[in-house]
Amino acid sequence: MRTILCVLTILWCGWAGVRAQSLRPIQLDAPDKSRGTAVMKALSDRHSERTFADRMLSHKDLSDLLWAANGINRPDGKRTAASAMNKQDVDVYVFTKEGAYLYDAKAHRLDPVAEGDHRPLIAGSQTFVNEAPVCLLLVTDYSRFGTSGSEEHRKLMGAFDAGLVSQNVALFCSGCGLVNVPRASMDTAALKKLLKLSDTQLPVINQPIGYPK
Amino acid sequence: MRTILCVLTILWCGWAGVRAQSLRPIQLDAPDKSRGTAVMKALSDRHSERTFADRMLSHKDLSDLLWAANGINRPDGKRTAASAMNKQDVDVYVFTKEGAYLYDAKAHRLDPVAEGDHRPLIAGSQTFVNEAPVCLLLVTDYSRFGTSGSEEHRKLMGAFDAGLVSQNVALFCSGCGLVNVPRASMDTAALKKLLKLSDTQLPVINQPIGYPK
Repeated sequence: MRTILCVLTILWCGWAGVRAQSLRPIQLDAPDKSRGTAVMKALSDRHSERTFADRMLSHKDLSDLLWAANGINRPDGKRTAASAMNKQDVDVYVFTKEGAYLYDAKAHRLDPVAEGDHRPLIAGSQTFVNEAPVCLLLVTDYSRFGTSGSEEHRKLMGAFDAGLVSQNVALFCSGCGLVNVPRASMDTAALKKLLKLSDTQLPVINQPIGYPK
Repeated sequence: MRTILCVLTILWCGWAGVRAQSLRPIQLDAPDKSRGTAVMKALSDRHSERTFADRMLSHKDLSDLLWAANGINRPDGKRTAASAMNKQDVDVYVFTKEGAYLYDAKAHRLDPVAEGDHRPLIAGSQTFVNEAPVCLLLVTDYSRFGTSGSEEHRKLMGAFDAGLVSQNVALFCSGCGLVNVPRASMDTAALKKLLKLSDTQLPVINQPIGYPK
């Protein structure tokens, strides 16, 4: 019996290892910088939506979405969203059915962080979140502000900076045919554990995204 | 001598009264909802700028700017920027050479709050702020969230919401030929006094805006 258990354990570990390895980095396409409606039209169409069509984002849309959110838009490495003292404190995590990824703006690539569908940690009782093919999680690491002001002040700057990124996402969606909603509620403790966040990394907002139903 | 002083005082008070009365509400034009570059182009051009041409914004640009920032974009009164629990906690104050105004989104109008050039309260030692013809001040009234969460949580939601409004401004500027920079530093105490803000009204960010030099 013990031998069978050992063999099963070894097989399970091996299989889990293969699964973990199966989640590979996703290289994103170069952004289409001429895309979308006029800015004022996107502002006019900006709204929150909580229902989504049951299909994954295209690679092009995923690529443009991440770049719009907080991509590099200049040779000096600056971003589509400003940040306090240009400390670029906001990290964008991407949750899909397959896993959780971290957006690397420099490489314009999604790096795997955790395999599996972890959207329920964001959804809680609001199960519509699980129906969005992509859910962003905006995390400020306010330690990047050093000792500037009080800790509360640093957190406030981080939350403000997350707002800049979030609105980039909202206007990309309204201007390019996607829908989204920014949400503050989530299982923060479980997400911090899953993503191995430090004490100064604060999940500010999550943003389910998809195509209109 | 005392009589002369009395007369001068009366004349001064009268003149000041006339001046205060001279600052009238500014009715803004209906927004041009088809205006601006493509959203992705606006994101590509988004950057902070600290020099401004020496001329006031046109009435059309001022009108579109305020609507873009936090105007009403739907019949149900919802805005170009989301807000936590739709509490619409962010108020937009407008500082010009003539005075400080509060944006009334419902009437799409600027209402006078304080006469005179108060931009130096925002500028501090960074005198370029005084050269921007318009400076926005984004204030969250986090009492509008009621007793939701801790006070720190309510402040963080307010700061996040201000970020949404601020990025609307940034993308309006990059998409419609204006320049701006979001700034956290200012004489907060003096501004709260000037604008008669309550304890729960928190000036989060200011944003000098103008035409490129």
